[in-house]
Amino acid sequence: MSDAPLDLLLLPRWIVPVEPAGVVLEHHALGIRDGRIALIAPREAALREPARQTRELPDTVLIPGLVNAHGHAAMSLFRGFADDLPLMTWLQQHIWPLEARWVSEAFVRDGTALAAAEQVRGGVTSFSDMYFFPEVAAQVAHEQGVRAQVCIPIIDFPVPGAKTRADAIAAGRALREALPGLPRVRLAFGPHAPYTVGADSLQETMALAREWDIRIQMHVHETAHEVEEAVSLHGERPLARLARAGALGPHFQAVHVTQVNDEDMATLAATGTHVLHCPESNLKLASGFCPVERLWQAGVNVAVGTDGAASNNDLDLLGETRTAALLAKAVAGSATALDAHRALRMATLNGARALGLDALTGSLEVGKAADLVGVDLSGLAQQPVYDPVSQLIYATGRECIRHVWVDGRALLADGELTQVDEAALIATVRDWGMRMRLGASGA
Amino acid sequence: MSDAPLDLLLLPRWIVPVEPAGVVLEHHALGIRDGRIALIAPREAALREPARQTRELPDTVLIPGLVNAHGHAAMSLFRGFADDLPLMTWLQQHIWPLEARWVSEAFVRDGTALAAAEQVRGGVTSFSDMYFFPEVAAQVAHEQGVRAQVCIPIIDFPVPGAKTRADAIAAGRALREALPGLPRVRLAFGPHAPYTVGADSLQETMALAREWDIRIQMHVHETAHEVEEAVSLHGERPLARLARAGALGPHFQAVHVTQVNDEDMATLAATGTHVLHCPESNLKLASGFCPVERLWQAGVNVAVGTDGAASNNDLDLLGETRTAALLAKAVAGSATALDAHRALRMATLNGARALGLDALTGSLEVGKAADLVGVDLSGLAQQPVYDPVSQLIYATGRECIRHVWVDGRALLADGELTQVDEAALIATVRDWGMRMRLGASGA
Repeated sequence: MSDAPLDLLLLPRWIVPVEPAGVVLEHHALGIRDGRIALIAPREAALREPARQTRELPDTVLIPGLVNAHGHAAMSLFRGFADDLPLMTWLQQHIWPLEARWVSEAFVRDGTALAAAEQVRGGVTSFSDMYFFPEVAAQVAHEQGVRAQVCIPIIDFPVPGAKTRADAIAAGRALREALPGLPRVRLAFGPHAPYTVGADSLQETMALAREWDIRIQMHVHETAHEVEEAVSLHGERPLARLARAGALGPHFQAVHVTQVNDEDMATLAATGTHVLHCPESNLKLASGFCPVERLWQAGVNVAVGTDGAASNNDLDLLGETRTAALLAKAVAGSATALDAHRALRMATLNGARALGLDALTGSLEVGKAADLVGVDLSGLAQQPVYDPVSQLIYATGRECIRHVWVDGRALLADGELTQVDEAALIATVRDWGMRMRLGASGA
Repeated sequence: MSDAPLDLLLLPRWIVPVEPAGVVLEHHALGIRDGRIALIAPREAALREPARQTRELPDTVLIPGLVNAHGHAAMSLFRGFADDLPLMTWLQQHIWPLEARWVSEAFVRDGTALAAAEQVRGGVTSFSDMYFFPEVAAQVAHEQGVRAQVCIPIIDFPVPGAKTRADAIAAGRALREALPGLPRVRLAFGPHAPYTVGADSLQETMALAREWDIRIQMHVHETAHEVEEAVSLHGERPLARLARAGALGPHFQAVHVTQVNDEDMATLAATGTHVLHCPESNLKLASGFCPVERLWQAGVNVAVGTDGAASNNDLDLLGETRTAALLAKAVAGSATALDAHRALRMATLNGARALGLDALTGSLEVGKAADLVGVDLSGLAQQPVYDPVSQLIYATGRECIRHVWVDGRALLADGELTQVDEAALIATVRDWGMRMRLGASGA
């Protein structure tokens, strides 16, 4: 195999492999063969390798594909429907009635298509999804060619697609059987939150996750109110309760975690539980501040997620990472917290570790999948470039992302989606928007 | 005059005038005559007005030009030169030596050109600048056709272009005499900060500002350290000291203000002092959190600024406003704080009020200058559109800004800068970057 020509040799201005940490390669090339990274070498040496196709990428920094560790893809259809409201008003008076009325397999198909396409445009090559009809979301991710962790939603009341927990698990089991046909889809359990998933549900979820050898993603310590209520009802904090139940560990992805005392910190670090930080959602819903730098220094793996577009309101992981990098400094009280290189690592390799994908993706290393993003730094707002990683994190918007590959296949080529009829998708989404707006006005 | 045909009739999908507050006009038109807004009317009625030119703007929301209330334009040439460092290390070991070595009239000309062009691309029609060689910055703003408040820098040590305060004031006086030829430039004083401007300097600045009838912009309460040091040295907080000196008032623009106790709040409100909020700079330098919602509710006029690109690292006022809107909620502990409509008002009319330009710009009202921005909401990431203001603030990047007018003149037309040779400017800036990078490496 190693004697076969490269399928594609990329010649970017810079390569940031993320692993090893802090490295910026100038005038290097990256070669792809059979969907894998086959070569990273100085330009002149790489050009001596036979390659079926060679592509110059001037002014472009090549980075690992971004990993959006937490979201609710299909909720993109609710983007901006109801904003600037207290969490419970938003949920009870807007989102839950909307979901009860509108969410169907067709809704999840079109909403996930919108979310996946937005994410690919924004350099996301792997995303996690937690929503209803996960089998539909899995299919859409497969069709668009993007990597996905699809969470089977577990919650102690009837939801679209699953009247009972048994329904949800049965759907999950069927999806599990379909996985051989969905090579970029991973399954996980998504018990919603400690306050919506009782002890029985949690135990069954944990047992099945062990049996199926899959991960668990759960909203944990999103708000101070949630923690206070748990203490008042159960006499202990949700993280302590989860630890006591044996739920935590390297297979556990705790989303949000804005409330962290010393005991929580020790528990997270000791168990190897991953934290999925969603800074813009936490800000917009006034949930609190995740102490990212303290967690990082304590050895906790922190990844980043956009949350759903109904609350955020975009799936812009590069922008989310910028917000995380800025916010971490103010929360830590130190301008050196979460520097640009570590922020990029959080958005790539840490995300892959959290989702259990780090053997496959998250950094540019020979042998890993060719999940790559090319970002054009030639624009006015990126000049001058002293450090491409600083420019990428602090001064560059997702519109500068021009190329995205997953498993070596170009999903975004010169700014154009290759797997999606974008005009048709926009028309479909607008139609959903119009119907839901009319529905809301009682027409 | 009112019988003359309109110069231009714009037919956008939505108009958000900002004043009156909270209004979104659908299927209305805006007419321009002699650089002023001459008409805002329902589409059908407007189409009956004679117009030299008519332009359909489908899927576009028309908003007032954005006002960037605080920045250091030419520092864009230092963008990303030194990041993720403590404030004093950054200033003393990086920025000040760089400035001493490199800042000249040519530096300010090219750096301000970069900053102005980036800002026009990003929908900024008025910006404030505080840097050396203000007469050069004024000339550049004039040439690019953008509105600017140029601050005469006052600081108690020698700086590029002004060895003494007398030099700085003499340059300011000369610029004042040149103002009739610079119709979009306003002059202000920029005493740097309470800790770098002594009592004599402040008194002379105040006296001249009164005599010339111009505003004063000053960094105030940027960090807790600044406040503590002042209390320790002078026995009072900087804001109290400024109030006692008679410096505060509706002509005073206080930048940052991350430290606010009840007395500060009362002082700001009672004096009508404006607060210029720079959230991303405050986060990145770990300076603190400005309590925007509390200030707003107390009746203080809060505007928004990017600060300089050496610390931020962009001049993206739309992104800065999004950060402000998100952060204000978490800081206030309320998801209803600084909603999307008020955030847009902060970035437009409040900015114009702070700079003393609100009779002229900051809202779309008949008689005001035609300072307008057209934002294209047709993209995937903006769908579906329930409320264009929510979409604009929470889900739209500056790359969706397609048209910018100042005084009715198109500075950005269909995404292209009309007053700037962008390729030549980028080449000039890259040359600066290369020379400064070589200089830093001792070559």
